[in-house]
This record gives sequence, structure tokens and C-alpha cells, in this order.
Amino acid sequence: MSQTAPLAASVIDLAEALIACPSVTPATGMVFDCLEEQLAPLGFDVTRFAAGDAPDGPVENLFAVRRGPQGSRHFAFAGHLDVVPPGEGWTTAPFLPERRGELLYGRGAVDMKGSIAAMVAAVREIPVDTGTISFIITGDEEGPARHGTVALIELMRERGEIPDMCLVGEPTSVNRLGDMMKIGRRGSVNIFLDVDGTQGHVAYPHLADNPVTKLITMLAELNDLALDDGTDWFQASNLEITDLTVGNPAHNVIPAQAAARISIRFNDLHTGAELGERVAAIAEKHGGTARPIVSGEAFLTQPGAFSTLLADAIRAETGVEPELSTSGGTSDARFLKDLCPVIEFGLCNATMHKRDEAVAIADLDTLTRIYQRVIAAALAAPSVNS
Amino acid sequence: MSQTAPLAASVIDLAEALIACPSVTPATGMVFDCLEEQLAPLGFDVTRFAAGDAPDGPVENLFAVRRGPQGSRHFAFAGHLDVVPPGEGWTTAPFLPERRGELLYGRGAVDMKGSIAAMVAAVREIPVDTGTISFIITGDEEGPARHGTVALIELMRERGEIPDMCLVGEPTSVNRLGDMMKIGRRGSVNIFLDVDGTQGHVAYPHLADNPVTKLITMLAELNDLALDDGTDWFQASNLEITDLTVGNPAHNVIPAQAAARISIRFNDLHTGAELGERVAAIAEKHGGTARPIVSGEAFLTQPGAFSTLLADAIRAETGVEPELSTSGGTSDARFLKDLCPVIEFGLCNATMHKRDEAVAIADLDTLTRIYQRVIAAALAAPSVNS
Repeated sequence: MSQTAPLAASVIDLAEALIACPSVTPATGMVFDCLEEQLAPLGFDVTRFAAGDAPDGPVENLFAVRRGPQGSRHFAFAGHLDVVPPGEGWTTAPFLPERRGELLYGRGAVDMKGSIAAMVAAVREIPVDTGTISFIITGDEEGPARHGTVALIELMRERGEIPDMCLVGEPTSVNRLGDMMKIGRRGSVNIFLDVDGTQGHVAYPHLADNPVTKLITMLAELNDLALDDGTDWFQASNLEITDLTVGNPAHNVIPAQAAARISIRFNDLHTGAELGERVAAIAEKHGGTARPIVSGEAFLTQPGAFSTLLADAIRAETGVEPELSTSGGTSDARFLKDLCPVIEFGLCNATMHKRDEAVAIADLDTLTRIYQRVIAAALAAPSVNS
Repeated sequence: MSQTAPLAASVIDLAEALIACPSVTPATGMVFDCLEEQLAPLGFDVTRFAAGDAPDGPVENLFAVRRGPQGSRHFAFAGHLDVVPPGEGWTTAPFLPERRGELLYGRGAVDMKGSIAAMVAAVREIPVDTGTISFIITGDEEGPARHGTVALIELMRERGEIPDMCLVGEPTSVNRLGDMMKIGRRGSVNIFLDVDGTQGHVAYPHLADNPVTKLITMLAELNDLALDDGTDWFQASNLEITDLTVGNPAHNVIPAQAAARISIRFNDLHTGAELGERVAAIAEKHGGTARPIVSGEAFLTQPGAFSTLLADAIRAETGVEPELSTSGGTSDARFLKDLCPVIEFGLCNATMHKRDEAVAIADLDTLTRIYQRVIAAALAAPSVNS
């Protein structure tokens, strides 16, 4: 079998069609209909399902697969159709895509409806017999993300649809399209610290037990903690105190409770659990408790065949040599890395999450061609892990 | 001229009459009428006036003076007719005085309508030609206290009514009537600490400036501050952190502001202004600011003739040797010490500010006799400051 996808609208038209479907996180309905209408004619078998219950669900998800010949390789795109709220101050209507000069404006233009449009446009040029291609698309990446990509991975495991590699379309480029890909992400853990004491009058401190004193000593020790100096591919792990709470309006009263919240972004020398235990030991030493909530573990897709074929494609289309980075926040790549090797690469992120989010129209075409090269090389490669 | 006060009701009747006038701070009207009706027949010249404007005023005050012969000494009682709110859980009606066994129940029984009743009862037995006696009574000691005793002192200065000594009837006794008098008080200053930073994403700490980090370092240094080891009559000065505020709900955001409040109770080695400057220097070193609000300066009425005549009176009536203390919170003595030597002595404070506030009926009689001895000795003494 050798067929190409039906002739369709340009990548810009596709991006506009997706932007025109309002989809503030969690995305549902229309924006998924729009994507399904594009994928089905290309021969994709589309599965849509809702996962999870309130308060973090239900979440709408889409898995689409177009199978190549028996035994062929499987390349996956991953992404999200939800967007962050538009906020105030736009000079365009956030959900009415508008071309102005060389830019296309609209919420999601770079994060990441533009990338998804490029994925679809790229796939159209790939013959079916080249190999298996899938789309792992959630409606909840910008929100709690408990029932999005996680549920999609579960579905794929159940069906035995395990890709050989996965490219996430997050906007990883910084100044020019192609200047950065993400081959890993730091882990993230929030830790809630609490100290109980005994309330009393400030004039009689011997009858009270000030929890704030203990909390300050605890936080001073945590602040001084040198977690590491970074690794080959990661910057040093970092701890920030993000909140303090006592809530005591009475000037002459020693309060009964004090609390703090810290956030640690950590590299591949650590796990969330290990850091939680380490902080808990310090908290307990100072008479407090620590409750860690791990958002994601650090991971690294070792530079190799996958990053090389991506870099080659970028270089061929842009002349830019991409930096292999692990900087920044978390993304759904933290879940996908359990399924297969994962790398993130997409549009320029300068306007992401901001007002007047916009993509260079030329970048949409270039990204489409990069993605085409990536698919072709990935499905032809003997192994991505060599 | 030699006359005694008209025969009147017992000290218990007087205490009951005052308790029966509800006077949650700020006290006004009826409770002052009740006191005036007791003092006027004893030959007192009573001045009542309101001081201050909203929000901390107007406050009702009473100054009563019965002048002795030209050149005679002047002894002053000071106190307050306002009481703290009754709160919940009483087994009696807080403003319906009730004798039950050996106790008299009611809000203000010990703090300090019982003491004021004892002052009035004591004065009745003192002949007018013994010397000048005055009452410095405010309706706002338990509240902001900005227009109470402060305004009374101003009036007295204007009129040239400067006592030789002043006894404040606060409930200073602890386990037994007479076991403690207060010859001074620590000072009190609240200091508001603020640190401004630059908000940012926890994944990009180099683009942010976390004010919490600076606040914690600042507070750790303040916590370690050894202010002093105490003095002959004072315990060591003490600093407590009483509040922390960031108010940042976003787990992945470095906040823009952080704040704390500290309370320092300090002895006579310090002034509020000096401590404010010292804390401000530490705050500034860590990139923050400090705003001190001094509630009162430390003061000491050096042990001498005044404390001796009071101790003699206590010992004679109770057999108890009073401890000379400077412990506890602030009182209006912090203002009166600018007028003349001041000592505080009154009933047992076990139930003050609590539900079921009660005074031992026998203590009211004993306190009356102690106050009589004090007045007689004070007006007869050659000098209180020798």
C-alpha cells in the first residue's frame, strides 16, 4: 500500500482552525472535533475518551494511530489542545485568529496549536507504508494534568501501542526556530512544612512555645542546603521557599501554628521521594513535619540517535544548531518518558502564556518541514537508542 | 479641718455596684456615674471629660481630687473602669454580681472594679487634713489606651496637680493577696518587617528575586540576637516572631513580597527607638525594611521608700512578704511613670480576663485596709524618693 493523504488546507489554515475553537484548560468538544476531522481523512484510527472525575476531571483525550506495515517502526507526536486563559490586554480577540504582517495571533498560536497543525501537515506528506504514526493529544496539560497524558499512556499500554520514540510539540525554541530542543526536564516537588507550638502571651514566652522560631531555623537550614552542582546535562537543583503562613492578627500573642511551602526543581541526581525524606528529616529535627507532593521526576533522554536525527532535520531546514537543554518547567514529557524515549521541540516561546500570543507564519511552514524530516528519519532508523 | 467620710456601703457593696454597670471597653456613662456618686460625698472635686476622636476615641475619663492642707503631700490612685468582653461559658451573668460562698463573681471583680471599690472604701477612713488624695480613672485601659490615662496626665499637668506617688490598682497578686507588687514594667515594641522582591517562575529563579529567602535570613539573625542577660530588677529582653505573611497560592511562583511581625519586650537597658533602629539595620542588611511601633518604654520605680511603705502595709495586714517584680505585660503605669513614682498593687489575677472572673470577698476587706495603711504612710512620709 502506498498512498498519500488527501490534499488539505495549509498549515496556517489548520492552525487558525484550531485557534478558533476556544479551549481554555480543560479543553473539550469542538477543538477535538476539529483535529479529528483533519486526522480521519489521513487514515488515522481516532479514539476519543474522557478520563477522571471531579475535581481534576473529567478530561477529554484523543489517541490517533495510522498503522504502517507489520513490524514497522512507530513514531508518536504528543501535545495538548488546551490553552491557558487569555488574560487581559490583547490587541486582537484571543480566539479569533488574526494574520497581521508576518505573524498569526491567537491564544495557543505557539503553545501549542501551531505545533499540532504542523504535525498534521507533516504527516500528510508521509506515505502510509513508511511506518506507524500516532498522535497523543490531551485536553489537560495546562491544568492539574492528572487524567490527561497519564490516561492516554494507560490506554496505549493496554492496546500494546508502544512507540519507538515520541516528539512533544512544546514551544522549546527561544530566539529562533530551532535553537533549542529539550532532551529532559528537571523534576519538581512541592513540600508543605508545618510546625505546631503552644499559643501564649508574648509577655510570658516561657509559658508558650513559638512555632515560628522553629520554622525560621528550619527554613534557614533548608535555604543553606547545597543539593548539587549540576550534572552533564542539568543545571544545579534549586530550592525556593514559595509561601509562609501564620495568620496571627494579635500583636501580643505567640501563635500556635506556622507553615511554609517550598518548591524544589531537581536534576537526575535526585528523586522526589529522596528529597521529601531529606527535607522531612530537617523538618523533624526542628520540631516540624513535611508533606511532599511530587509533580514529576527528573528524566533525561540521553543524547544519541533521536536527538541527532532531530538536530539534523533542524539544521537542514534552518541552518541553526539546536542546543540540547533540560531547562525550564515541567511538561507532559515527564509522563511520556515512561513509555519511550521522548524529546520536546516546537515553536518560539517568547509569547507563550502572554497576551498577544503569536507565531511567525513562516515558522509554521518551516516546522512542518522539520517534522516531516523527523518522521521520515525516525521511521527509517534502525534504532533510536543506539 | 478634721472630718471623716460619711458612712457608706461596704467595700463589697461598692464592688457590686460597679460590676453591675456593664462597661466593656471603652467604658462610658453609668459606671462613671456610680463612681462619682461615691466620691462626691467624700469631698472629692470630680472632673469628667471625653478625649480623642474616632477610631480610638472618644474615651471617657474621670479625675477626682480631695485637697489636703496647703503644702501637704499628694497621693494618687490610678485605675480603669473598662473591662474586657466577658466571652462565653460563664456560670453567672457577667454583669450581675453574684456572691457564691467566699467569692464574688462578675466581670471586673479583680480587674479592676474590686480594687477601685477598695480605694474608695480606704479613702473614707482617711481624714481630709491628712493630705491630698486623687483618683486617676480611665474608661480605656483594655483598648487602644490612646486617649485615657494619657489625657488624664495632660489635664493634671495643666492644673499643676502633680502627685508625690501613684498606686495603680492592677491585679498584681498571684497566689495570695500581697505576694507581688510591680515596681516597673518592661517596654514593648512591635516591628513590621517587609521585603520586596521580583516575582517569577520557580523554574527560572535567576529571573526572579525571592523575598522569602531574604526574610528568612533576616529573621534567623534576629532570632539569634542576644539583647541582654537581664538586669537587677528585670528579666532578659525577649524577641518573638509573631507573624509571617506571604499569601502566595501558586506553587510554581516565586512571590513578590514577604512580611513578618516581631514583638520585643525589653528591659531598662533599652528604648523602643534604639531597638527599632537596631532591627532596621539588620532588616536593611538583608534587603528589607522595618517599621517599629513602640507601645511603651521600660520603666523602673527604684525600690525605696514607696515600695517599703507598701510592703510594710501588705505585711501588716497579710503576713505576706511581697515580691518586687517587673514581669508581665504593659499597663497604664507606663504613662503614669512620667508623672511621678508609680507602683502597681492589687487583687489576685488568676481569673482576670477569663470566664467566671471572681474575687475572694475577704480580699476586698484586706485590700481596703492595706490601701488605708498605704495612704496614711504615704501622706505622712517625708519623701517617697529617699
